[in-house]
Amino acid sequence: MTFKEETIKSEMVYKGRVLNLRRDEVMTVSGRPSVREIVEHGGGVALVAVTDEGKIIMERQFRKPLERDVLEIPAGKLEPGEDPFEAAGRELAEETGYRAANIEYLTRYYPSVGYCQEALYMYLCTGLTKGETNPDEDEAIDIYEYSFEELCGMIDRGELEDGKSIAALFAASLRIAKKEK
Amino acid sequence: MTFKEETIKSEMVYKGRVLNLRRDEVMTVSGRPSVREIVEHGGGVALVAVTDEGKIIMERQFRKPLERDVLEIPAGKLEPGEDPFEAAGRELAEETGYRAANIEYLTRYYPSVGYCQEALYMYLCTGLTKGETNPDEDEAIDIYEYSFEELCGMIDRGELEDGKSIAALFAASLRIAKKEK
Repeated sequence: MTFKEETIKSEMVYKGRVLNLRRDEVMTVSGRPSVREIVEHGGGVALVAVTDEGKIIMERQFRKPLERDVLEIPAGKLEPGEDPFEAAGRELAEETGYRAANIEYLTRYYPSVGYCQEALYMYLCTGLTKGETNPDEDEAIDIYEYSFEELCGMIDRGELEDGKSIAALFAASLRIAKKEK
Repeated sequence: MTFKEETIKSEMVYKGRVLNLRRDEVMTVSGRPSVREIVEHGGGVALVAVTDEGKIIMERQFRKPLERDVLEIPAGKLEPGEDPFEAAGRELAEETGYRAANIEYLTRYYPSVGYCQEALYMYLCTGLTKGETNPDEDEAIDIYEYSFEELCGMIDRGELEDGKSIAALFAASLRIAKKEK
Protein backbone atom coordinates (compact mmCIF):
# COMPACT_ATOMS: atom_id res chain seq x y z
CA MET A 1 0.00 0.00 0.00
CA THR A 2 1.38 3.41 -0.88
CA PHE A 3 -1.26 5.49 0.91
CA LYS A 4 0.13 7.79 3.61
CA GLU A 5 -1.69 10.28 5.81
CA GLU A 6 -0.12 13.69 5.24
CA THR A 7 0.14 15.97 8.27
CA ILE A 8 -1.76 19.24 7.79
CA LYS A 9 -0.96 20.61 11.23
CA SER A 10 0.88 19.23 14.26
CA GLU A 11 0.50 20.51 17.81
CA MET A 12 2.37 19.38 20.92
CA VAL A 13 -0.38 19.19 23.55
CA TYR A 14 1.76 18.08 26.48
CA LYS A 15 5.45 17.50 27.11
CA GLY A 16 5.92 15.32 30.16
CA ARG A 17 8.26 13.23 32.22
CA VAL A 18 7.67 9.85 30.57
CA LEU A 19 5.62 10.77 27.51
CA ASN A 20 4.51 13.60 25.25
CA LEU A 21 1.12 13.97 23.60
CA ARG A 22 0.89 15.28 20.05
CA ARG A 23 -2.25 16.15 18.09
CA ASP A 24 -1.90 15.85 14.31
CA GLU A 25 -4.47 16.98 11.80
CA VAL A 26 -4.13 14.65 8.80
CA MET A 27 -5.63 14.08 5.39
CA THR A 28 -7.22 10.62 5.41
CA VAL A 29 -7.68 8.15 2.57
CA SER A 30 -11.26 9.40 2.10
CA GLY A 31 -9.88 12.87 1.24
CA ARG A 32 -11.33 14.33 4.41
CA PRO A 33 -9.30 15.76 7.29
CA SER A 34 -9.18 13.93 10.60
CA VAL A 35 -7.30 14.05 13.89
CA ARG A 36 -4.68 11.59 15.15
CA GLU A 37 -3.74 11.80 18.82
CA ILE A 38 -0.25 10.38 19.22
CA VAL A 39 1.59 9.44 22.39
CA GLU A 40 5.34 9.94 22.05
CA HIS A 41 7.44 7.71 24.28
CA GLY A 42 11.18 7.06 24.34
CA GLY A 43 10.81 3.29 24.25
CA GLY A 44 12.21 0.59 26.42
CA VAL A 45 13.35 -2.97 26.85
CA ALA A 46 11.57 -6.10 28.05
CA LEU A 47 13.41 -9.21 29.16
CA VAL A 48 12.68 -12.94 29.17
CA ALA A 49 15.29 -13.99 31.71
CA VAL A 50 15.61 -17.77 32.06
CA THR A 51 17.54 -19.39 34.94
CA ASP A 52 19.71 -22.48 34.46
CA GLU A 53 16.79 -24.43 35.99
CA GLY A 54 14.52 -23.22 33.18
CA LYS A 55 12.52 -20.81 35.37
CA ILE A 56 11.48 -17.40 34.05
CA ILE A 57 12.00 -14.32 36.21
CA MET A 58 8.77 -12.36 36.80
CA GLU A 59 8.02 -9.20 38.75
CA ARG A 60 4.96 -7.92 40.52
CA GLN A 61 4.53 -4.20 41.10
CA PHE A 62 1.83 -1.60 41.58
CA ARG A 63 0.76 0.06 38.33
CA LYS A 64 -1.08 3.34 38.76
CA PRO A 65 -3.06 3.17 35.47
CA LEU A 66 -4.74 -0.07 36.64
CA GLU A 67 -4.68 0.87 40.38
CA ARG A 68 -3.40 -2.61 41.24
CA ASP A 69 -0.43 -4.96 41.11
CA VAL A 70 0.52 -6.41 37.75
CA LEU A 71 2.64 -9.50 37.03
CA GLU A 72 5.20 -8.73 34.32
CA ILE A 73 8.55 -9.69 32.89
CA PRO A 74 11.38 -7.28 33.85
CA ALA A 75 11.31 -4.16 31.71
CA GLY A 76 12.34 -0.55 31.77
CA LYS A 77 12.62 2.66 29.85
CA LEU A 78 15.57 3.54 27.65
CA GLU A 79 17.66 6.42 28.94
CA PRO A 80 18.06 9.16 26.30
CA GLY A 81 20.55 7.92 23.70
CA GLU A 82 21.00 4.56 25.41
CA ASP A 83 21.57 1.46 23.30
CA PRO A 84 18.74 -1.06 23.90
CA PHE A 85 21.24 -3.90 24.38
CA GLU A 86 23.01 -1.94 27.14
CA ALA A 87 19.64 -1.08 28.69
CA ALA A 88 18.69 -4.77 28.74
CA GLY A 89 21.61 -5.70 30.96
CA ARG A 90 21.17 -2.61 33.13
CA GLU A 91 17.45 -3.12 33.75
CA LEU A 92 17.83 -6.82 34.47
CA ALA A 93 20.47 -6.09 37.11
CA GLU A 94 18.66 -3.12 38.65
CA GLU A 95 15.26 -4.75 38.96
CA THR A 96 16.06 -8.42 39.59
CA GLY A 97 19.69 -8.48 40.74
CA TYR A 98 20.55 -10.98 38.01
CA ARG A 99 23.45 -10.59 35.58
CA ALA A 100 23.12 -12.41 32.24
CA ALA A 101 26.09 -13.99 30.44
CA ASN A 102 24.00 -14.11 27.24
CA ILE A 103 21.62 -11.40 26.04
CA GLU A 104 20.01 -12.17 22.68
CA TYR A 105 17.75 -9.83 20.72
CA LEU A 106 14.33 -11.29 20.00
CA THR A 107 12.15 -8.67 18.33
CA ARG A 108 10.55 -5.27 18.67
CA TYR A 109 7.11 -4.81 20.20
CA TYR A 110 4.80 -1.90 19.38
CA PRO A 111 2.19 -1.95 22.16
CA SER A 112 -0.42 0.31 20.54
CA VAL A 113 0.23 1.15 16.90
CA GLY A 114 -3.02 3.11 16.65
CA TYR A 115 -2.00 5.97 18.94
CA CYS A 116 1.50 5.37 20.31
CA GLN A 117 4.90 5.25 18.65
CA GLU A 118 6.63 3.50 21.57
CA ALA A 119 8.82 0.53 20.67
CA LEU A 120 9.99 -2.05 23.21
CA TYR A 121 13.06 -4.12 22.38
CA MET A 122 12.75 -7.68 23.64
CA TYR A 123 15.67 -9.82 24.73
CA LEU A 124 16.26 -13.38 25.85
CA CYS A 125 18.63 -13.43 28.84
CA THR A 126 20.38 -16.64 29.90
CA GLY A 127 23.45 -17.66 31.90
CA LEU A 128 22.08 -15.80 34.94
CA THR A 129 24.02 -15.15 38.17
CA LYS A 130 22.43 -13.51 41.19
CA GLY A 131 23.64 -10.21 42.63
CA GLU A 132 22.10 -7.25 44.41
CA THR A 133 19.03 -5.39 43.12
CA ASN A 134 19.10 -1.64 42.68
CA PRO A 135 15.56 -0.54 41.80
CA ASP A 136 14.55 3.05 41.13
CA GLU A 137 13.55 4.81 44.35
CA ASP A 138 9.95 5.03 43.13
CA GLU A 139 9.65 1.29 42.51
CA ALA A 140 8.68 -1.54 44.85
CA ILE A 141 9.18 -4.78 42.98
CA ASP A 142 8.60 -8.35 44.15
CA ILE A 143 10.43 -11.07 42.21
CA TYR A 144 9.01 -14.51 41.34
CA GLU A 145 10.06 -17.49 39.23
CA TYR A 146 7.70 -19.54 37.08
CA SER A 147 8.12 -22.30 34.53
CA PHE A 148 7.12 -21.54 30.93
CA GLU A 149 4.25 -24.04 31.26
CA GLU A 150 2.96 -22.29 34.39
CA LEU A 151 3.01 -18.94 32.58
CA CYS A 152 1.18 -20.42 29.57
CA GLY A 153 -1.58 -21.62 31.90
CA MET A 154 -1.73 -18.18 33.52
CA ILE A 155 -2.11 -16.51 30.13
CA ASP A 156 -4.93 -18.85 29.16
CA ARG A 157 -6.72 -18.29 32.48
CA GLY A 158 -6.34 -14.49 32.27
CA GLU A 159 -3.93 -14.28 35.21
CA LEU A 160 -1.12 -12.82 33.11
CA GLU A 161 -2.52 -9.90 31.14
CA ASP A 162 0.53 -7.71 30.58
CA GLY A 163 0.93 -7.32 26.84
CA LYS A 164 4.72 -7.13 26.63
CA SER A 165 5.04 -10.25 28.81
CA ILE A 166 2.69 -12.32 26.63
CA ALA A 167 4.36 -11.13 23.43
CA ALA A 168 7.92 -11.61 24.68
CA LEU A 169 7.25 -15.08 26.07
CA PHE A 170 5.87 -16.07 22.65
CA ALA A 171 8.85 -14.59 20.82
CA ALA A 172 11.25 -16.35 23.21
CA SER A 173 9.49 -19.69 22.80
CA LEU A 174 9.64 -19.37 19.00
CA ARG A 175 13.35 -18.59 19.13
CA ILE A 176 14.11 -21.49 21.48
CA ALA A 177 12.04 -23.88 19.34
CA LYS A 178 13.95 -22.76 16.23
CA LYS A 179 17.28 -23.47 17.91
CA GLU A 180 16.16 -26.92 19.02
CA LYS A 181 15.17 -27.88 15.46
CA MET B 1 1.92 -6.81 47.91
CA THR B 2 -0.36 -4.34 49.66
CA PHE B 3 1.47 -1.17 48.65
CA LYS B 4 -0.65 1.27 46.66
CA GLU B 5 0.27 4.72 45.34
CA GLU B 6 -2.21 7.21 46.79
CA THR B 7 -3.26 10.07 44.52
CA ILE B 8 -2.38 13.48 45.98
CA LYS B 9 -3.70 15.48 43.05
CA SER B 10 -5.16 14.53 39.67
CA GLU B 11 -5.35 16.82 36.66
CA MET B 12 -6.93 16.13 33.26
CA VAL B 13 -4.37 17.50 30.81
CA TYR B 14 -6.22 16.70 27.58
CA LYS B 15 -9.61 15.27 26.66
CA GLY B 16 -9.55 13.99 23.10
CA ARG B 17 -11.27 11.99 20.44
CA VAL B 18 -9.64 8.60 21.08
CA LEU B 19 -7.83 9.17 24.36
CA ASN B 20 -7.48 11.45 27.37
CA LEU B 21 -4.28 12.31 29.21
CA ARG B 22 -4.28 12.57 33.00
CA ARG B 23 -1.45 13.73 35.26
CA ASP B 24 -1.54 12.27 38.77
CA GLU B 25 0.70 13.34 41.61
CA VAL B 26 1.18 10.28 43.80
CA MET B 27 2.93 9.23 46.98
CA THR B 28 5.46 6.53 46.05
CA VAL B 29 6.74 3.61 48.10
CA SER B 30 9.80 5.66 49.06
CA GLY B 31 7.51 8.19 50.81
CA ARG B 32 8.34 10.83 48.22
CA PRO B 33 5.87 12.38 45.80
CA SER B 34 6.13 11.60 42.09
CA VAL B 35 4.16 12.10 38.91
CA ARG B 36 2.32 9.45 36.89
CA GLU B 37 1.21 10.39 33.38
CA ILE B 38 -1.72 8.20 32.45
CA VAL B 39 -3.35 7.70 29.06
CA GLU B 40 -7.06 6.95 29.39
CA HIS B 41 -8.51 4.93 26.51
CA GLY B 42 -11.91 3.28 26.11
CA GLY B 43 -10.44 -0.09 25.15
CA GLY B 44 -11.08 -2.35 22.24
CA VAL B 45 -11.14 -5.81 20.77
CA ALA B 46 -8.58 -7.82 18.80
CA LEU B 47 -9.47 -10.89 16.78
CA VAL B 48 -7.69 -14.06 15.75
CA ALA B 49 -9.97 -15.07 12.90
CA VAL B 50 -9.19 -18.52 11.47
CA THR B 51 -10.67 -19.75 8.18
CA ASP B 52 -11.82 -23.35 7.66
CA GLU B 53 -8.54 -23.84 5.76
CA GLY B 54 -6.58 -22.85 8.91
CA LYS B 55 -5.49 -19.45 7.58
CA ILE B 56 -5.44 -16.41 9.84
CA ILE B 57 -6.93 -13.12 8.62
CA MET B 58 -4.46 -10.23 8.77
CA GLU B 59 -4.73 -6.57 7.83
CA ARG B 60 -2.27 -4.00 6.63
CA GLN B 61 -2.98 -0.31 7.15
CA PHE B 62 -1.18 2.98 7.55
CA ARG B 63 -0.51 3.89 11.17
CA LYS B 64 0.26 7.54 11.77
CA PRO B 65 2.35 7.05 14.96
CA LEU B 66 4.86 4.92 12.99
CA GLU B 67 4.37 6.82 9.67
CA ARG B 68 4.14 3.52 7.81
CA ASP B 69 1.98 0.45 7.15
CA VAL B 70 1.64 -2.10 9.91
CA LEU B 71 0.56 -5.75 9.63
CA GLU B 72 -1.99 -6.58 12.33
CA ILE B 73 -4.85 -8.83 13.28
CA PRO B 74 -8.30 -7.20 12.91
CA ALA B 75 -9.06 -4.93 15.86
CA GLY B 76 -11.10 -1.93 16.78
CA LYS B 77 -12.23 0.39 19.52
CA LEU B 78 -15.20 -0.31 21.75
CA GLU B 79 -18.11 2.07 21.24
CA PRO B 80 -19.16 3.72 24.54
CA GLY B 81 -21.07 1.12 26.56
CA GLU B 82 -20.59 -1.59 23.95
CA ASP B 83 -20.13 -5.18 25.08
CA PRO B 84 -16.73 -6.49 23.89
CA PHE B 85 -18.30 -9.69 22.52
CA GLU B 86 -20.69 -7.63 20.35
CA ALA B 87 -17.78 -5.42 19.26
CA ALA B 88 -15.80 -8.50 18.21
CA GLY B 89 -18.43 -9.57 15.71
CA ARG B 90 -18.99 -6.00 14.50
CA GLU B 91 -15.32 -5.21 13.94
CA LEU B 92 -14.62 -8.50 12.17
CA ALA B 93 -17.48 -7.84 9.74
CA GLU B 94 -16.69 -4.15 9.19
CA GLU B 95 -12.98 -4.58 8.58
CA THR B 96 -12.69 -7.98 6.90
CA GLY B 97 -16.19 -8.77 5.62
CA TYR B 98 -16.16 -12.08 7.49
CA ARG B 99 -18.92 -13.26 9.80
CA ALA B 100 -17.94 -15.78 12.49
CA ALA B 101 -20.23 -18.59 13.64
CA ASN B 102 -18.06 -19.01 16.76
CA ILE B 103 -16.54 -16.18 18.78
CA GLU B 104 -14.63 -17.36 21.86
CA TYR B 105 -13.07 -15.11 24.48
CA LEU B 106 -9.34 -15.65 24.92
CA THR B 107 -7.96 -13.09 27.36
CA ARG B 108 -7.44 -9.43 28.07
CA TYR B 109 -4.34 -7.56 26.88
CA TYR B 110 -2.97 -4.46 28.59
CA PRO B 111 -0.58 -2.94 26.02
CA SER B 112 1.33 -0.58 28.34
CA VAL B 113 0.61 -1.03 32.03
CA GLY B 114 3.15 1.65 32.97
CA TYR B 115 1.25 4.60 31.54
CA CYS B 116 -1.98 3.41 29.89
CA GLN B 117 -5.13 1.84 31.32
CA GLU B 118 -6.40 0.56 27.96
CA ALA B 119 -7.58 -3.05 27.86
CA LEU B 120 -8.04 -5.03 24.66
CA TYR B 121 -10.34 -8.05 24.73
CA MET B 122 -9.06 -10.84 22.53
CA TYR B 123 -11.26 -13.36 20.75
CA LEU B 124 -10.83 -16.47 18.64
CA CYS B 125 -13.21 -16.36 15.66
CA THR B 126 -13.97 -19.51 13.64
CA GLY B 127 -16.70 -20.75 11.32
CA LEU B 128 -16.08 -17.80 8.99
CA THR B 129 -18.25 -16.86 6.01
CA LYS B 130 -17.34 -14.04 3.64
CA GLY B 131 -19.54 -10.97 3.16
CA GLU B 132 -19.01 -7.31 2.33
CA THR B 133 -16.57 -5.09 4.23
CA ASN B 134 -17.71 -1.79 5.71
CA PRO B 135 -14.61 -0.01 7.02
CA ASP B 136 -14.67 3.38 8.73
CA GLU B 137 -14.38 6.20 6.20
CA ASP B 138 -10.95 7.10 7.58
CA GLU B 139 -9.54 3.59 7.12
CA ALA B 140 -7.89 1.96 4.10
CA ILE B 141 -7.33 -1.66 4.97
CA ASP B 142 -5.79 -4.44 2.87
CA ILE B 143 -6.63 -8.00 3.87
CA TYR B 144 -4.24 -10.97 3.80
CA GLU B 145 -4.28 -14.59 4.91
CA TYR B 146 -1.32 -16.39 6.51
CA SER B 147 -0.81 -19.75 8.16
CA PHE B 148 0.08 -19.79 11.86
CA GLU B 149 3.54 -21.13 10.94
CA GLU B 150 4.11 -18.26 8.51
CA LEU B 151 3.17 -15.74 11.19
CA CYS B 152 5.48 -17.41 13.73
CA GLY B 153 8.36 -17.03 11.29
CA MET B 154 7.45 -13.39 10.71
CA ILE B 155 7.45 -12.72 14.46
CA ASP B 156 10.88 -14.31 14.83
CA ARG B 157 12.27 -12.32 11.90
CA GLY B 158 10.80 -9.03 13.15
CA GLU B 159 8.31 -8.71 10.29
CA LEU B 160 5.27 -8.79 12.60
CA GLU B 161 5.85 -6.27 15.38
CA ASP B 162 2.33 -5.33 16.40
CA GLY B 163 1.97 -6.15 20.08
CA LYS B 164 -1.68 -7.15 20.16
CA SER B 165 -1.16 -9.47 17.17
CA ILE B 166 1.78 -11.28 18.78
CA ALA B 167 -0.02 -11.60 22.12
CA ALA B 168 -3.34 -12.73 20.63
CA LEU B 169 -1.73 -15.31 18.34
CA PHE B 170 0.02 -16.78 21.39
CA ALA B 171 -3.19 -16.83 23.44
CA ALA B 172 -5.06 -18.45 20.55
CA SER B 173 -2.38 -21.11 20.06
CA LEU B 174 -2.45 -21.93 23.79
CA ARG B 175 -6.24 -22.28 23.73
CA ILE B 176 -6.20 -24.49 20.62
CA ALA B 177 -3.42 -26.66 22.09
CA LYS B 178 -5.45 -27.07 25.30
CA LYS B 179 -8.50 -28.25 23.34
CA GLU B 180 -6.44 -30.73 21.35
CA LYS B 181 -5.05 -32.34 24.51
